Amino acid sequence: MSVKVGIIMGSDSDLPVMSKAAEILDELQVPYELTIVSAHRTPDRLCEYAKTAEEKGLSVIIAGAGGAAHLPGMTAAMTVLPVIGVPVQTKALGGVDSLYSIVQMPPGIPVATVAINGAQNAGLLAAKILATEDAALRERLKAYSSKLEQTVLNKADKLEHIGYEAYLKEM
Amino acid sequence: MSVKVGIIMGSDSDLPVMSKAAEILDELQVPYELTIVSAHRTPDRLCEYAKTAEEKGLSVIIAGAGGAAHLPGMTAAMTVLPVIGVPVQTKALGGVDSLYSIVQMPPGIPVATVAINGAQNAGLLAAKILATEDAALRERLKAYSSKLEQTVLNKADKLEHIGYEAYLKEM
Amino acid sequence: MSVKVGIIMGSDSDLPVMSKAAEILDELQVPYELTIVSAHRTPDRLCEYAKTAEEKGLSVIIAGAGGAAHLPGMTAAMTVLPVIGVPVQTKALGGVDSLYSIVQMPPGIPVATVAINGAQNAGLLAAKILATEDAALRERLKAYSSKLEQTVLNKADKLEHIGYEAYLKEM
Amino acid sequence: MSVKVGIIMGSDSDLPVMSKAAEILDELQVPYELTIVSAHRTPDRLCEYAKTAEEKGLSVIIAGAGGAAHLPGMTAAMTVLPVIGVPVQTKALGGVDSLYSIVQMPPGIPVATVAINGAQNAGLLAAKILATEDAALRERLKAYSSKLEQTVLNKADKLEHIGYEAYLKEM
Amino acid sequence: MSVKVGIIMGSDSDLPVMSKAAEILDELQVPYELTIVSAHRTPDRLCEYAKTAEEKGLSVIIAGAGGAAHLPGMTAAMTVLPVIGVPVQTKALGGVDSLYSIVQMPPGIPVATVAINGAQNAGLLAAKILATEDAALRERLKAYSSKLEQTVLNKADKLEHIGYEAYLKEM
Amino acid sequence: MSVKVGIIMGSDSDLPVMSKAAEILDELQVPYELTIVSAHRTPDRLCEYAKTAEEKGLSVIIAGAGGAAHLPGMTAAMTVLPVIGVPVQTKALGGVDSLYSIVQMPPGIPVATVAINGAQNAGLLAAKILATEDAALRERLKAYSSKLEQTVLNKADKLEHIGYEAYLKEM
Amino acid sequence: MSVKVGIIMGSDSDLPVMSKAAEILDELQVPYELTIVSAHRTPDRLCEYAKTAEEKGLSVIIAGAGGAAHLPGMTAAMTVLPVIGVPVQTKALGGVDSLYSIVQMPPGIPVATVAINGAQNAGLLAAKILATEDAALRERLKAYSSKLEQTVLNKADKLEHIGYEAYLKEM
Amino acid sequence: MSVKVGIIMGSDSDLPVMSKAAEILDELQVPYELTIVSAHRTPDRLCEYAKTAEEKGLSVIIAGAGGAAHLPGMTAAMTVLPVIGVPVQTKALGGVDSLYSIVQMPPGIPVATVAINGAQNAGLLAAKILATEDAALRERLKAYSSKLEQTVLNKADKLEHIGYEAYLKEM
Repeated sequence: MSVKVGIIMGSDSDLPVMSKAAEILDELQVPYELTIVSAHRTPDRLCEYAKTAEEKGLSVIIAGAGGAAHLPGMTAAMTVLPVIGVPVQTKALGGVDSLYSIVQMPPGIPVATVAINGAQNAGLLAAKILATEDAALRERLKAYSSKLEQTVLNKADKLEHIGYEAYLKEM
Repeated sequence: MSVKVGIIMGSDSDLPVMSKAAEILDELQVPYELTIVSAHRTPDRLCEYAKTAEEKGLSVIIAGAGGAAHLPGMTAAMTVLPVIGVPVQTKALGGVDSLYSIVQMPPGIPVATVAINGAQNAGLLAAKILATEDAALRERLKAYSSKLEQTVLNKADKLEHIGYEAYLKEM
Repeated sequence: MSVKVGIIMGSDSDLPVMSKAAEILDELQVPYELTIVSAHRTPDRLCEYAKTAEEKGLSVIIAGAGGAAHLPGMTAAMTVLPVIGVPVQTKALGGVDSLYSIVQMPPGIPVATVAINGAQNAGLLAAKILATEDAALRERLKAYSSKLEQTVLNKADKLEHIGYEAYLKEM
Repeated sequence: MSVKVGIIMGSDSDLPVMSKAAEILDELQVPYELTIVSAHRTPDRLCEYAKTAEEKGLSVIIAGAGGAAHLPGMTAAMTVLPVIGVPVQTKALGGVDSLYSIVQMPPGIPVATVAINGAQNAGLLAAKILATEDAALRERLKAYSSKLEQTVLNKADKLEHIGYEAYLKEM
Repeated sequence: MSVKVGIIMGSDSDLPVMSKAAEILDELQVPYELTIVSAHRTPDRLCEYAKTAEEKGLSVIIAGAGGAAHLPGMTAAMTVLPVIGVPVQTKALGGVDSLYSIVQMPPGIPVATVAINGAQNAGLLAAKILATEDAALRERLKAYSSKLEQTVLNKADKLEHIGYEAYLKEM
Repeated sequence: MSVKVGIIMGSDSDLPVMSKAAEILDELQVPYELTIVSAHRTPDRLCEYAKTAEEKGLSVIIAGAGGAAHLPGMTAAMTVLPVIGVPVQTKALGGVDSLYSIVQMPPGIPVATVAINGAQNAGLLAAKILATEDAALRERLKAYSSKLEQTVLNKADKLEHIGYEAYLKEM
Repeated sequence: MSVKVGIIMGSDSDLPVMSKAAEILDELQVPYELTIVSAHRTPDRLCEYAKTAEEKGLSVIIAGAGGAAHLPGMTAAMTVLPVIGVPVQTKALGGVDSLYSIVQMPPGIPVATVAINGAQNAGLLAAKILATEDAALRERLKAYSSKLEQTVLNKADKLEHIGYEAYLKEM
Repeated sequence: MSVKVGIIMGSDSDLPVMSKAAEILDELQVPYELTIVSAHRTPDRLCEYAKTAEEKGLSVIIAGAGGAAHLPGMTAAMTVLPVIGVPVQTKALGGVDSLYSIVQMPPGIPVATVAINGAQNAGLLAAKILATEDAALRERLKAYSSKLEQTVLNKADKLEHIGYEAYLKEM
């Protein structure tokens, strides 16, 4: 099956966060590629990546970056594909800088922004986008939601039965 | 052509902002429906809207709300379709409350968040999502980008020729 | 004695915070139930919980959640009972996201919001609400306040007598 | 019918905001008293008001203030009654100062905080508290919610029928 | 020599911060008293402390508190003495809540606010106030400033001589 | 009577705010001088002003500035006199920049910070400082407080008698 | 004299702010060029502008943008010239989004950031940079500083002589 | 080669951050001096440093400070040289206080501000400024950029070849 999702990040220091996008796509059986593209250190690579993404057959791009995070927005400026932005948490400002740099895009160039460090949700959003035309993936997404729901129900059931003191001790 | 995008908002006071999503979809020839669904005042309507969106044939939902903005996230909780959230600006906090309420979703339930009052970009993002499987729409999106680019180039050209004092006087 | 207070939280990861509500209700001899209800992962459970709370005989609901915290507000949208919201602290934003998502409710659907991680105060507030028609509970609340006051007075007395250097060493 | 709710505010400049609490209580037929109590300019009046509120027969106190807003918290420190705090918007900081000063109470002394300028919700919350033991008021609250819901449904219906351009022109 | 400065704090958990005020007053030979006064848990003690401070012979009060920090402002409301407020750092919000609660006082009741956790500066400010009429204390303050200056000059001299690598190793 | 208070501001654009300090000192019969000293545009004037303030007989300095507000802190660095800082509101950031620039002073050099635009309180604080050794001024301050209190009591009385609707109409 | 400074902005809506950079460069007799370059709408133009700036003979680039402001940082990524960034004020967030997007650059690619809307200072900074090797410009800069200083001294003199009431009336 | 860059900081506690400026200048073979100058504790030293910087032959000054960070702005007020400001991270506010205190300078006195703790970028910016008239340094800067680019390309290559799980294990 051809690769549909491109996951890029500004630095390998973002990998512990961004790998969550890969993990959920693995679980949902969505093929992806994953690499490093720095808007500031490798601007030519950024241009090439963004401009060739469509012809390579990608359908969605997930881009994560921190601080003055220009990678998602600049990628979106150079491709017709939907771009999902992941603001990576920062030491000084907690990631508000990343969030504002990614979400506050001007009219004409949207970036689909998820929560700070929300790479897993970026993967899910990419899958939801692909699933608009992929019934099987849509079913896998529904199964995933059902699993999430069941996990909560099981925990709720356990909590109600053993009580909060016992539950806390097991955590 | 069947309706592909549902635009909902928490209150008719959000309409001056949210109508920008409709306008761009009109321009891009993407059929949509637009209505009011309040997460807090009409929770049953919210559940029904979200749960029937897929079977109605919608592919993407755009949801705008302000303050403790629960509409996008709760919609996303009840549909497999991708949901785009528009944080509406608020008087006291400028829309930071709306933004945090929409973007900071927990793992498992993404909302594709755009800028504060960024309804036009929500419409564009919806079109980009649909265009992943619609070559004609993709071309219209590229034409739209070219038009944006040309508008900037024309303005730049004018500014360079008449100078900033003259340009300012015409604004 | 019938259960009067329902304590719900969006995830078992909120339990270390939310258990403080249970502890103070235990101390004040107010019967309660405690469980997990996720607005986003178990929306049907949320609807059922909120809509049946009154007929089950609950008088007050305490709801805690973090990030895009929709549980308190959505519960309040579906019950006539007073709902107390506890914003749970978050890693990236310290809980400002939780606070804004809970407190900035639109006209018509109030949530009685307490401090970030203020679950103990949520329990006390629930007790104060019940005590408006329960003289014995009101007395227990007054006794609790007196105990708090006495604890401060004792510490002040000790500090004044042994001096701050000695007091610091004992901390 | 005896007065059940006391509405106080730090300054008459808060009256345009705080009068919304009175209006909703009027609509819900909940008797109230309304006056000015300044924590900083009339501290003795504050102490007397808070300490006599219970014996006067009040069940709930609504307190609004802006900036370093100490009125709700100090009232809560001196009465067993539930206190609802309304953070009033401020010029420089938008009311974040008021919000933090009211909501971030220490363990032991809760204030039920509503949105910035959320006086109407404060009135509704007071009514919800009284309704825990007043079936008729509970019915009036449910009717109020139904009215809110119906208003949204009517607006949605109109919007769907006349379209957003026509709707915007009528706003 | 009579006690001139009263140092109060809302909780003994503030003592590690507030003891810095005592230490600098010790160093400057300014007699002080230090105790715990909680605005919320011991409101009567607060009133008594503030109202008797002048007749006890105090000239300045230093008050430290965190979160919804009402102690400095309420003390200022009940005494003609200058009150210095110390915002204590908080876990969730870093002390912005404490700062806003202390500094944003309404016209008529000033609190002389220092930095978050700035208890040492509160002590120095108290000494500067007393020194307006105490030439000997003024000299001690000048000596203290000279000592600070000399310490910096010595460090600068060392840094310039041994270089930053060596200096860092010794830190 | 000799001049005891120096009021300085960074720009004449601060005068509408800073004149409130002068007005209250006039009312309290405290002699003062008032001028412009820009830390950034007239650094030599700043040094001279700060270094000669004591020998000129000043007892307190009030310094107001906006944005990167260095005037209060730099003045405090060059005089033993207590310095009161007034953060002036700014267009972009509401004065949070001014507040942080003034209040967050390092150990050793305190600035007594008041609210954003709180020049009246700066004047009152200066008077409170002078009153620590001036019984007559202390009485005038108490009279001022009583007047404030009486004004609130009168307004409360009026509001209670004519009701909030009538009161609002007269505002 | 050859053009040394390039002034670019993301949109002509930034021109009222950015023209202040041109004005001060005019006053200091520093030749410049000024145009529109949108990082998001004209990414190719951005690449070309940044990559040819050096060979065109520019020495400094001033780039202004608002919201998710990527223009300064992306320009800096593609030229060895120093880039000065001007965060333009925004409606919803006051320009904090612009500021964070510009100043929080990662190691390796600095942007010399000035205040929100600080285009005049951007022009001055460019002149200061050029003046490191241009003694005549350095003298003009010193004359400009002297003029600023004299303006303040004149205003201070006037204020001291006519008093603040008269001065305010003339404003 | 004569010293061109002066690096100053407000306290030796800033050295672990500020030494990054020295390291990069070492790498780029730009001679510098480095010392401690406290705006608040050694104001005379500050005046002397700033006023003699030009005649000493410095071309650029890098100044780092935290909290109410006045060092960069006050230095800029007293020299015609370009001043680069480094906001040092703070415990309570993460460095937002430092950032605002440095970047929000009034018209007439620019400070070239870099990211919180961005001392390395301050060094690079100083080098870029010097390189406007130093072709050899410009080449070293280009080589440095190429090295950065190559490092990213190498990491990307490795990541693409070994996969993210293996890459994460090696981190």
